Amino acid sequence: MTSEIDSTAHKGLTIVYTGDGKGKTSAALGNAFRALGHGWKVLIIQFLKGDWPVVFGELASAKQHPRLEILQLGKGFVKIMGDPKPLEEHRLAACEAMRLAKEKIFSGDYDLVVLDEVNYAVDALNLRLVKLKDLIEIIKKKPARTHLILTGRNAKQEIIDLADLVTEMKEIKHPYQKGVPAQKGIDY
Amino acid sequence: MTSEIDSTAHKGLTIVYTGDGKGKTSAALGNAFRALGHGWKVLIIQFLKGDWPVVFGELASAKQHPRLEILQLGKGFVKIMGDPKPLEEHRLAACEAMRLAKEKIFSGDYDLVVLDEVNYAVDALNLRLVKLKDLIEIIKKKPARTHLILTGRNAKQEIIDLADLVTEMKEIKHPYQKGVPAQKGIDY
Repeated sequence: MTSEIDSTAHKGLTIVYTGDGKGKTSAALGNAFRALGHGWKVLIIQFLKGDWPVVFGELASAKQHPRLEILQLGKGFVKIMGDPKPLEEHRLAACEAMRLAKEKIFSGDYDLVVLDEVNYAVDALNLRLVKLKDLIEIIKKKPARTHLILTGRNAKQEIIDLADLVTEMKEIKHPYQKGVPAQKGIDY
Repeated sequence: MTSEIDSTAHKGLTIVYTGDGKGKTSAALGNAFRALGHGWKVLIIQFLKGDWPVVFGELASAKQHPRLEILQLGKGFVKIMGDPKPLEEHRLAACEAMRLAKEKIFSGDYDLVVLDEVNYAVDALNLRLVKLKDLIEIIKKKPARTHLILTGRNAKQEIIDLADLVTEMKEIKHPYQKGVPAQKGIDY
Protein backbone atom coordinates (compact mmCIF):
# COMPACT_ATOMS: atom_id res chain seq x y z
CA MET A 1 0.00 0.00 0.00
CA THR A 2 1.45 3.31 -1.03
CA SER A 3 0.62 6.70 0.39
CA GLU A 4 -0.87 9.49 -1.65
CA ILE A 5 1.50 11.60 -3.67
CA ASP A 6 1.15 14.07 -6.50
CA SER A 7 0.52 12.46 -9.82
CA THR A 8 2.21 15.42 -11.48
CA ALA A 9 5.65 14.82 -12.95
CA HIS A 10 7.40 13.32 -9.96
CA LYS A 11 10.95 12.19 -10.07
CA GLY A 12 12.38 10.53 -7.02
CA LEU A 13 15.70 12.23 -6.29
CA THR A 14 18.82 10.67 -4.87
CA ILE A 15 20.20 13.12 -2.33
CA VAL A 16 23.58 12.88 -0.62
CA TYR A 17 24.51 14.75 2.55
CA THR A 18 28.22 14.24 3.10
CA GLY A 19 31.24 16.11 4.47
CA ASP A 20 32.81 16.46 7.91
CA GLY A 21 30.46 19.12 9.24
CA LYS A 22 27.50 18.80 11.55
CA GLY A 23 24.02 18.71 10.05
CA LYS A 24 23.93 15.69 7.73
CA THR A 25 21.69 13.45 9.81
CA SER A 26 19.77 16.48 11.07
CA ALA A 27 19.00 17.56 7.50
CA ALA A 28 17.77 14.08 6.61
CA LEU A 29 15.63 14.08 9.74
CA GLY A 30 14.23 17.48 8.74
CA ASN A 31 13.45 16.18 5.26
CA ALA A 32 11.74 13.15 6.75
CA PHE A 33 9.44 15.33 8.81
CA ARG A 34 8.78 17.61 5.89
CA ALA A 35 7.78 14.54 3.87
CA LEU A 36 5.54 13.27 6.64
CA GLY A 37 3.96 16.71 6.67
CA HIS A 38 3.01 16.18 3.04
CA GLY A 39 1.37 12.86 3.83
CA TRP A 40 4.20 10.74 2.50
CA LYS A 41 5.28 7.34 3.67
CA VAL A 42 8.82 7.37 5.06
CA LEU A 43 11.36 4.67 5.85
CA ILE A 44 14.48 5.42 7.83
CA ILE A 45 17.28 2.88 8.02
CA GLN A 46 20.09 3.54 10.44
CA PHE A 47 23.43 1.98 9.69
CA LEU A 48 25.12 3.21 12.85
CA LYS A 49 23.83 3.46 16.34
CA GLY A 50 22.32 6.89 16.46
CA ASP A 51 20.25 9.16 18.56
CA TRP A 52 17.17 9.00 16.39
CA PRO A 53 15.40 6.31 18.41
CA VAL A 54 15.22 8.78 21.28
CA VAL A 55 13.51 11.36 19.11
CA PHE A 56 11.40 9.01 17.13
CA GLY A 57 10.61 6.92 20.16
CA GLU A 58 8.92 9.83 21.80
CA LEU A 59 7.31 11.08 18.63
CA ALA A 60 6.13 7.61 17.76
CA SER A 61 4.60 7.07 21.15
CA ALA A 62 3.03 10.51 21.03
CA LYS A 63 1.74 10.25 17.52
CA GLN A 64 1.71 6.57 16.68
CA HIS A 65 2.69 7.82 13.25
CA PRO A 66 1.38 5.30 10.73
CA ARG A 67 3.55 6.58 7.89
CA LEU A 68 6.98 6.39 9.52
CA GLU A 69 8.98 3.18 9.75
CA ILE A 70 12.41 2.92 11.33
CA LEU A 71 14.84 0.05 11.01
CA GLN A 72 18.11 -0.30 12.87
CA LEU A 73 20.09 -2.62 10.68
CA GLY A 74 23.49 -4.02 11.39
CA LYS A 75 22.87 -3.02 14.98
CA GLY A 76 26.14 -2.86 16.80
CA PHE A 77 28.17 -4.07 13.87
CA VAL A 78 30.39 -1.03 13.91
CA LYS A 79 31.54 -1.46 17.48
CA ILE A 80 33.92 -4.14 16.53
CA MET A 81 36.69 -3.16 18.86
CA GLY A 82 36.06 -4.87 22.15
CA ASP A 83 33.19 -6.78 20.60
CA PRO A 84 33.63 -10.55 21.09
CA LYS A 85 31.66 -11.57 18.00
CA PRO A 86 33.79 -12.84 15.12
CA LEU A 87 34.00 -10.62 12.04
CA GLU A 88 32.24 -13.22 9.95
CA GLU A 89 29.15 -12.90 12.13
CA HIS A 90 29.11 -9.15 11.51
CA ARG A 91 29.52 -9.69 7.79
CA LEU A 92 26.52 -11.98 7.73
CA ALA A 93 24.46 -9.48 9.73
CA ALA A 94 25.41 -6.66 7.37
CA CYS A 95 24.65 -8.82 4.36
CA GLU A 96 21.21 -9.67 5.75
CA ALA A 97 20.67 -5.99 6.59
CA MET A 98 21.31 -4.90 3.01
CA ARG A 99 19.07 -7.67 1.71
CA LEU A 100 16.24 -6.37 3.89
CA ALA A 101 16.97 -2.76 2.89
CA LYS A 102 16.69 -3.68 -0.78
CA GLU A 103 13.50 -5.63 -0.22
CA LYS A 104 11.90 -2.68 1.57
CA ILE A 105 13.05 -0.08 -0.95
CA PHE A 106 12.24 -2.11 -4.04
CA SER A 107 8.75 -2.85 -2.67
CA GLY A 108 7.73 0.61 -3.84
CA ASP A 109 5.88 1.24 -0.58
CA TYR A 110 7.85 4.36 0.35
CA ASP A 111 7.92 7.92 -0.92
CA LEU A 112 11.13 8.71 0.94
CA VAL A 113 13.86 6.42 2.24
CA VAL A 114 16.74 7.67 4.40
CA LEU A 115 19.86 5.51 4.67
CA ASP A 116 21.48 7.20 7.62
CA GLU A 117 25.30 7.01 7.83
CA VAL A 118 25.42 4.59 4.93
CA ASN A 119 28.29 6.47 3.27
CA TYR A 120 30.32 6.04 6.41
CA ALA A 121 29.38 2.38 6.66
CA VAL A 122 30.56 1.82 3.09
CA ASP A 123 33.78 3.73 3.32
CA ALA A 124 35.25 4.67 6.63
CA LEU A 125 35.20 1.41 8.50
CA ASN A 126 37.59 -0.12 6.01
CA LEU A 127 35.78 -3.34 6.69
CA ARG A 128 33.34 -2.74 3.87
CA LEU A 129 30.55 -4.43 5.77
CA VAL A 130 28.21 -2.50 3.52
CA LYS A 131 29.25 -3.05 -0.07
CA LEU A 132 29.46 -0.16 -2.50
CA LYS A 133 27.94 -2.28 -5.25
CA ASP A 134 24.85 -2.92 -3.12
CA LEU A 135 24.38 0.79 -2.58
CA ILE A 136 24.82 1.47 -6.29
CA GLU A 137 22.22 -1.19 -7.05
CA ILE A 138 19.76 0.49 -4.68
CA ILE A 139 20.23 3.87 -6.36
CA LYS A 140 19.89 2.43 -9.84
CA LYS A 141 16.97 0.09 -9.20
CA LYS A 142 14.90 2.01 -6.67
CA PRO A 143 11.34 2.83 -7.75
CA ALA A 144 11.38 5.94 -9.95
CA ARG A 145 9.12 7.93 -7.64
CA THR A 146 10.99 7.10 -4.42
CA HIS A 147 13.27 9.79 -3.00
CA LEU A 148 16.45 8.45 -1.45
CA ILE A 149 18.66 10.28 1.04
CA LEU A 150 22.15 8.95 1.83
CA THR A 151 24.06 10.50 4.71
CA GLY A 152 27.54 10.08 6.10
CA ARG A 153 30.97 11.52 5.50
CA ASN A 154 33.27 10.41 2.68
CA ALA A 155 30.59 9.59 0.14
CA LYS A 156 32.20 7.60 -2.65
CA GLN A 157 32.68 9.34 -5.99
CA GLU A 158 30.53 6.67 -7.68
CA ILE A 159 27.66 7.63 -5.38
CA ILE A 160 28.13 11.35 -6.00
CA ASP A 161 28.13 10.70 -9.74
CA LEU A 162 24.81 8.86 -9.49
CA ALA A 163 23.14 11.37 -7.16
CA ASP A 164 20.87 14.21 -8.25
CA LEU A 165 21.67 16.48 -5.34
CA VAL A 166 24.82 16.54 -3.24
CA THR A 167 25.54 18.88 -0.36
CA GLU A 168 28.85 18.85 1.45
CA MET A 169 28.41 19.84 5.07
CA LYS A 170 31.71 21.56 5.69
CA GLU A 171 32.95 22.13 9.21
CA ILE A 172 33.87 25.79 9.61
CA LYS A 173 33.83 25.86 13.39
CA HIS A 174 33.02 23.23 15.99
CA PRO A 175 32.73 23.58 19.76
CA TYR A 176 34.88 20.48 20.30
CA GLN A 177 37.70 22.67 19.09
CA LYS A 178 37.12 24.75 22.21
CA GLY A 179 36.69 21.73 24.45
CA VAL A 180 32.91 22.02 24.79
CA PRO A 181 31.46 18.53 25.28
CA ALA A 182 28.68 17.07 23.16
CA GLN A 183 25.36 18.69 24.00
CA LYS A 184 22.17 16.80 24.67
CA GLY A 185 19.44 17.88 22.29
CA ILE A 186 21.95 19.22 19.82
CA ASP A 187 24.47 16.48 19.24
CA TYR A 188 22.36 13.55 20.36
CA MET B 1 7.66 28.31 32.67
CA THR B 2 10.64 26.43 31.42
CA SER B 3 10.81 22.81 30.41
CA GLU B 4 13.02 20.25 32.06
CA ILE B 5 16.63 20.11 30.99
CA ASP B 6 19.75 18.56 32.35
CA SER B 7 21.19 20.42 35.27
CA THR B 8 24.62 19.11 34.32
CA ALA B 9 27.00 21.61 32.75
CA HIS B 10 24.80 22.92 29.99
CA LYS B 11 25.97 25.60 27.66
CA GLY B 12 23.57 26.91 25.10
CA LEU B 13 25.36 26.86 21.77
CA THR B 14 25.03 29.31 18.92
CA ILE B 15 24.91 27.27 15.73
CA VAL B 16 25.09 28.66 12.20
CA TYR B 17 24.02 26.75 9.10
CA THR B 18 25.09 28.79 6.10
CA GLY B 19 26.34 28.30 2.54
CA ASP B 20 24.65 27.92 -0.84
CA GLY B 21 23.81 24.22 -0.55
CA LYS B 22 20.55 22.54 0.32
CA GLY B 23 20.00 21.35 3.88
CA LYS B 24 20.30 24.43 6.10
CA THR B 25 16.65 24.79 7.04
CA SER B 26 16.22 21.01 6.97
CA ALA B 27 19.05 20.59 9.48
CA ALA B 28 17.51 23.18 11.80
CA LEU B 29 14.17 21.44 11.47
CA GLY B 30 15.85 18.13 12.32
CA ASN B 31 17.49 19.69 15.36
CA ALA B 32 14.15 21.11 16.45
CA PHE B 33 12.56 17.68 16.36
CA ARG B 34 15.51 16.13 18.12
CA ALA B 35 15.13 18.75 20.86
CA LEU B 36 11.39 18.10 21.13
CA GLY B 37 12.24 14.44 21.46
CA HIS B 38 14.28 15.30 24.54
CA GLY B 39 11.36 17.14 26.07
CA TRP B 40 12.71 20.60 25.31
CA LYS B 41 10.74 23.72 24.58
CA VAL B 42 11.36 25.02 21.07
CA LEU B 43 10.69 28.33 19.35
CA ILE B 44 11.02 28.71 15.59
CA ILE B 45 10.98 32.14 14.01
CA GLN B 46 10.77 32.32 10.24
CA PHE B 47 12.17 35.40 8.58
CA LEU B 48 11.17 34.42 5.07
CA LYS B 49 8.04 32.79 3.83
CA GLY B 50 8.87 29.13 3.98
CA ASP B 51 7.42 25.71 3.67
CA TRP B 52 7.51 24.93 7.35
CA PRO B 53 3.92 25.94 8.08
CA VAL B 54 2.82 23.10 5.83
CA VAL B 55 4.82 20.60 7.81
CA PHE B 56 4.23 22.06 11.21
CA GLY B 57 0.63 22.77 10.43
CA GLU B 58 -0.05 19.11 10.01
CA LEU B 59 2.18 18.04 12.87
CA ALA B 60 0.67 20.66 15.14
CA SER B 61 -2.84 19.59 14.34
CA ALA B 62 -1.89 15.93 14.71
CA LYS B 63 0.03 16.35 17.90
CA GLN B 64 -1.06 19.65 19.37
CA HIS B 65 2.56 19.83 20.47
CA PRO B 66 2.66 21.95 23.61
CA ARG B 67 6.40 22.56 23.44
CA LEU B 68 6.70 23.95 19.92
CA GLU B 69 5.95 27.55 19.07
CA ILE B 70 6.26 29.03 15.59
CA LEU B 71 6.27 32.69 14.68
CA GLN B 72 6.24 34.10 11.19
CA LEU B 73 7.70 37.53 11.66
CA GLY B 74 8.06 40.21 9.04
CA LYS B 75 5.53 38.22 7.05
CA GLY B 76 5.77 39.26 3.46
CA PHE B 77 8.38 41.89 4.07
CA VAL B 78 10.80 40.33 1.63
CA LYS B 79 8.45 40.39 -1.33
CA ILE B 80 9.01 44.01 -1.85
CA MET B 81 9.00 44.00 -5.63
CA GLY B 82 5.41 44.33 -6.75
CA ASP B 83 4.34 44.96 -3.19
CA PRO B 84 2.41 48.24 -2.90
CA LYS B 85 3.36 48.91 0.71
CA PRO B 86 5.92 51.68 1.20
CA LEU B 87 9.38 50.59 2.38
CA GLU B 88 8.93 52.46 5.63
CA GLU B 89 6.02 50.20 6.53
CA HIS B 90 8.20 47.14 6.01
CA ARG B 91 10.95 48.65 8.11
CA LEU B 92 8.53 49.20 10.96
CA ALA B 93 7.24 45.63 10.65
CA ALA B 94 10.78 44.23 10.69
CA CYS B 95 11.67 46.41 13.64
CA GLU B 96 8.63 45.19 15.55
CA ALA B 97 9.47 41.60 14.53
CA MET B 98 12.95 41.83 15.99
CA ARG B 99 11.60 43.43 19.15
CA LEU B 100 9.25 40.48 19.60
CA ALA B 101 12.02 37.98 18.78
CA LYS B 102 14.23 39.50 21.46
CA GLU B 103 11.40 39.54 24.00
CA LYS B 104 10.70 35.85 23.36
CA ILE B 105 14.33 34.78 23.42
CA PHE B 106 15.33 36.85 26.43
CA SER B 107 12.33 35.52 28.37
CA GLY B 108 14.35 32.36 29.01
CA ASP B 109 11.35 30.19 28.25
CA TYR B 110 13.02 28.25 25.45
CA ASP B 111 15.68 25.56 25.31
CA LEU B 112 16.16 25.96 21.57
CA VAL B 113 15.39 28.89 19.28
CA VAL B 114 15.70 28.67 15.49
CA LEU B 115 15.92 31.90 13.51
CA ASP B 116 15.27 30.53 10.06
CA GLU B 117 16.80 32.43 7.12
CA VAL B 118 17.88 35.23 9.40
CA ASN B 119 21.36 35.39 7.83
CA TYR B 120 19.74 35.95 4.47
CA ALA B 121 17.40 38.56 5.92
CA VAL B 122 20.36 40.45 7.36
CA ASP B 123 22.58 40.28 4.35
CA ALA B 124 21.19 39.40 0.98
CA LEU B 125 18.24 41.71 0.70
CA ASN B 126 20.52 44.73 0.79
CA LEU B 127 17.66 46.46 2.54
CA ARG B 128 18.92 45.44 5.96
CA LEU B 129 15.41 45.13 7.29
CA VAL B 130 16.91 42.90 9.93
CA LYS B 131 19.83 44.73 11.47
CA LEU B 132 23.11 42.95 12.13
CA LYS B 133 23.47 44.68 15.47
CA ASP B 134 20.13 43.28 16.63
CA LEU B 135 21.24 39.77 15.74
CA ILE B 136 24.56 40.28 17.53
CA GLU B 137 22.66 41.51 20.58
CA ILE B 138 20.53 38.35 20.56
CA ILE B 139 23.60 36.10 20.43
CA LYS B 140 25.37 38.00 23.19
CA LYS B 141 22.43 38.46 25.54
CA LYS B 142 20.48 35.23 25.06
CA PRO B 143 20.01 33.13 28.20
CA ALA B 144 23.14 31.03 28.77
CA ARG B 145 21.29 27.72 28.57
CA THR B 146 19.36 28.53 25.37
CA HIS B 147 20.63 26.99 22.14
CA LEU B 148 20.31 29.26 19.13
CA ILE B 149 20.34 28.15 15.48
CA LEU B 150 20.73 30.73 12.72
CA THR B 151 20.19 29.63 9.13
CA GLY B 152 20.58 31.30 5.77
CA ARG B 153 23.31 31.82 3.23
CA ASN B 154 25.96 34.51 3.50
CA ALA B 155 26.24 34.58 7.27
CA LYS B 156 28.14 37.70 8.27
CA GLN B 157 31.67 37.24 9.55
CA GLU B 158 30.69 38.91 12.84
CA ILE B 159 28.08 36.18 13.35
CA ILE B 160 30.52 33.39 12.48
CA ASP B 161 33.02 34.84 14.93
CA LEU B 162 30.44 34.78 17.73
CA ALA B 163 29.08 31.30 16.94
CA ASP B 164 30.18 28.09 18.63
CA LEU B 165 29.44 25.82 15.69
CA VAL B 166 29.34 26.75 12.01
CA THR B 167 28.62 24.42 9.13
CA GLU B 168 28.79 25.56 5.53
CA MET B 169 26.32 23.67 3.39
CA LYS B 170 28.21 23.60 0.11
CA GLU B 171 26.42 22.85 -3.11
CA ILE B 172 28.27 20.07 -4.94
CA LYS B 173 25.45 19.08 -7.25
CA HIS B 174 21.89 20.30 -7.62
CA PRO B 175 19.08 18.96 -9.79
CA TYR B 176 18.22 22.45 -11.01
CA GLN B 177 21.47 22.21 -12.89
CA LYS B 178 19.83 19.43 -14.89
CA GLY B 179 16.53 21.24 -15.24
CA VAL B 180 14.66 19.16 -12.66
CA PRO B 181 11.98 21.35 -11.05
CA ALA B 182 11.58 21.80 -7.29
CA GLN B 183 10.17 18.65 -5.72
CA LYS B 184 7.31 18.60 -3.27
CA GLY B 185 8.31 16.96 -0.01
CA ILE B 186 11.97 17.60 -0.70
CA ASP B 187 12.29 21.26 -1.56
CA TYR B 188 9.10 22.48 0.05
